[in-house]
Amino acid sequence: MFEDRVVKEILERYRTIWSISHALSLMSWDNETYMPRGGVEERSTARAELSVLARKLLLDKSFVELVEKALHREGLNDYERGVVRVLHRQIRIQKSIPERLVFELVKTAGEASHVWREARKKNDFQMFKPYLEKIVKLRREYAEHLGYDDHPYDALLDLYEEDMRVRDVDAIFGKLVPETRKILEKVVSGELFPDKHELESMEYDREAMDRVNREVVTLLGYPWDRGRLDVSPHPFTITIGMKDVRITTRYEGRDFRRTLFATIHEFGHALYNLQIDERLKMTPLASGASLGVHESQSRFWENIVGRSLSFAEILKPILDKHLDFIKRYDAQELYRYFNIVRPDLIRVEADEITYNLHIYLRYELEKQMIAGELAVDDLPEQWNDMMEKLLGIKPKNYSEGVLQDIHWSGGSIGYFPTYTIGNVVAAQIRNHAENTLGDLEKIILEKKFDELREHLKETIHKWGSTYKPKELIQKQLGEPINPEYLIKYLKSKYLKES
Amino acid sequence: MFEDRVVKEILERYRTIWSISHALSLMSWDNETYMPRGGVEERSTARAELSVLARKLLLDKSFVELVEKALHREGLNDYERGVVRVLHRQIRIQKSIPERLVFELVKTAGEASHVWREARKKNDFQMFKPYLEKIVKLRREYAEHLGYDDHPYDALLDLYEEDMRVRDVDAIFGKLVPETRKILEKVVSGELFPDKHELESMEYDREAMDRVNREVVTLLGYPWDRGRLDVSPHPFTITIGMKDVRITTRYEGRDFRRTLFATIHEFGHALYNLQIDERLKMTPLASGASLGVHESQSRFWENIVGRSLSFAEILKPILDKHLDFIKRYDAQELYRYFNIVRPDLIRVEADEITYNLHIYLRYELEKQMIAGELAVDDLPEQWNDMMEKLLGIKPKNYSEGVLQDIHWSGGSIGYFPTYTIGNVVAAQIRNHAENTLGDLEKIILEKKFDELREHLKETIHKWGSTYKPKELIQKQLGEPINPEYLIKYLKSKYLKES
Repeated sequence: MFEDRVVKEILERYRTIWSISHALSLMSWDNETYMPRGGVEERSTARAELSVLARKLLLDKSFVELVEKALHREGLNDYERGVVRVLHRQIRIQKSIPERLVFELVKTAGEASHVWREARKKNDFQMFKPYLEKIVKLRREYAEHLGYDDHPYDALLDLYEEDMRVRDVDAIFGKLVPETRKILEKVVSGELFPDKHELESMEYDREAMDRVNREVVTLLGYPWDRGRLDVSPHPFTITIGMKDVRITTRYEGRDFRRTLFATIHEFGHALYNLQIDERLKMTPLASGASLGVHESQSRFWENIVGRSLSFAEILKPILDKHLDFIKRYDAQELYRYFNIVRPDLIRVEADEITYNLHIYLRYELEKQMIAGELAVDDLPEQWNDMMEKLLGIKPKNYSEGVLQDIHWSGGSIGYFPTYTIGNVVAAQIRNHAENTLGDLEKIILEKKFDELREHLKETIHKWGSTYKPKELIQKQLGEPINPEYLIKYLKSKYLKES
Repeated sequence: MFEDRVVKEILERYRTIWSISHALSLMSWDNETYMPRGGVEERSTARAELSVLARKLLLDKSFVELVEKALHREGLNDYERGVVRVLHRQIRIQKSIPERLVFELVKTAGEASHVWREARKKNDFQMFKPYLEKIVKLRREYAEHLGYDDHPYDALLDLYEEDMRVRDVDAIFGKLVPETRKILEKVVSGELFPDKHELESMEYDREAMDRVNREVVTLLGYPWDRGRLDVSPHPFTITIGMKDVRITTRYEGRDFRRTLFATIHEFGHALYNLQIDERLKMTPLASGASLGVHESQSRFWENIVGRSLSFAEILKPILDKHLDFIKRYDAQELYRYFNIVRPDLIRVEADEITYNLHIYLRYELEKQMIAGELAVDDLPEQWNDMMEKLLGIKPKNYSEGVLQDIHWSGGSIGYFPTYTIGNVVAAQIRNHAENTLGDLEKIILEKKFDELREHLKETIHKWGSTYKPKELIQKQLGEPINPEYLIKYLKSKYLKES
């Protein structure tokens, strides 16, 4: 796999950087799960120090020279070229941002996250405003340092989704938004899917639900000798090593589909990293191709598998075993509960149809802010207007409007589109899987998840980040990213159109 | 506290090394508690890489020069001198051992640990012999590289117990061993303390016992916002940061005093690191003075507090609450159960009286092996003969004799004496505490653990490793290390002599 002398030397030296990131991942996991409160301050220092150290090792003159030397080497195989591409990209990004700017963003985001939490609680946008202004300003500076052809937002988007541009995302939403709105109108006026369900208010026993979650991800094939399921305030997946990929969930105490689908979602993320070719371990290729492609995996399992009728069928006996109140609901009724369609003000509550409208709104607004076309002052009004146009509902306060998401306060601008890319690619993968394996409902009903896992492994997972996301999709799915499959999937599921 | 310009620069740079050791500590904790099995290989690589990186940063030319510069600076205060002393010592040790030798010992110990486990199971000394021979040889090389005046064992002992020498340890055992044997003979032939107890075979519910352990360390003052109690195959304490010191215990399912006293033991270790002066955080002084002084703290809480009659009194209601079978035993009976005296072949089963005889045996044998006076071939026979002489019992097989401890297989030679140093210093601290605070039994009965914690903090804890262990003991307890207090304590407790 890795034969080239220079690449081998690069990988040897990279192992130290990998080890630091291994430690940083474990520290993140611990922060969110088991660390006693008192540990915060020392942990923050250690994380900052180790991040700086990793950056130093990456930008070390002799290491950079090695990577540049490899860049012009002939006869490298795909994996070797992948290593050089990923590292060269990391070096380019790290080098182009002055340390001062990195520091200022980290510092501002640290403060902003606290202020945002407070502001959301108090429904006070004015409180958060100066921080968001600063973040937009700093991120705009990032864009200038990184460079771009068409739109400053391109530079930021590229950080999360290599080579993805505003024109690509515009094209996706250009098709997706009008079609989605049409589907939504029909579903809302129809009878097939409810807009609420009595199971939403049903309380569950936390330990019983933990057993359900464990049984479900075991059924899907989560390998417990290479993972764990713990509890954290926000569910996440973390790759500590290729054979140690942990997931978390949370228990709200009611509306059990929330924790169930959060757990399946994280399983999807975890499976990706668990199925990367083992020979890529401890290399720069031992992670997903991009955030969007990663999200396609979590969404595939959460929505396409998890919210299918067949899945409700096979879930029913598991739920019966652990949750008393479930007995009087059949699989069809569970399916309806899992697929409530309801325009909601809150993104994380959104169903499969409305979700991308929430993303579109955020994408448009952050794009305009970065371009200097929208002042932070005018943001709440714009938010509310767009929400009304897209979903027909209007926030009554900032907390359920512009202040609902953590992303901007954490300094992330350009991240949101990766959610929709994930949804779009998940539907493409569904189409590709059905062409290869046959009817997905049948596979799910027969619990042939090993076949499904194997298919995803061969198609997407095993490559890690050997290829750019666009290349991977073209090469493995046979065409570029294409929202038609998502539209088709939504029509077939929600309108019974084929 | 730290005013000197050069020392401040040293501490600034040291923070990166501290951060690596913070990460390594978390990794150790995770390894023993929550890591999925599959993570072993990548974790080992990451640990090795980060250890090498920390060594590199410590031995970095400009860092070493800085420390050497500080060594000759005038007017440093005690803390500043402590920083320079500890770092200079670390640099000296790391520099004097060739990397090849470090690597060979780590490799040999890694293999030997596996083989030892197997050999102990199979009662096969021949299987382990070549590994132990190799370890003795490598440790002898260590001694030559480190240098010594009188005895090669001095160099190894110094690694665990700064400035401690064979002549010091010989002097301690010279007094302790004959006195201990006399006490033992009297106790065994007397009626006050039993040589077995029916509670030893009593099974407990693991979750109930977990509640007992938590309640007990809460009573002693373990701060849950700066620590955790988890389960691991071998109980340990790990300092991740000054405000994050975690302990573990284990549950065998019967003989509840085992898990109870293991937990109290680890609490004692943890309290030491939790009570170091906060201003020493992230510096080389943020740890105990030595292994021996550390053990004095765990032994103080486990034995002097935990195995006292007063403690049995205050423990009784806690045990009553959680363990059904305890109701018919009064505090006096619990006290007898906690203080069974019985010559036993296994060190970790030993009581307060016989424990140091086990250590003496190991100390003598490893000292002779390092000096080349005892061949590994002759070790089992020597072991058995000494065991018979000291305790009057003889192992019937290797597993309950020479193969019982993990230490040698892990490459540790010179470690054992720190256990006895701990016991000796604990008794000195007991004497010092009584002179300051009054009768300890009364303090315990009145649950004035805050007073006791405060006393230990002022006397020992807060200084971290500012002073050498010998200096700390002299300065804070008013005299050098002295086994008379341990002898007096044992006589007063077990023979009712005052």
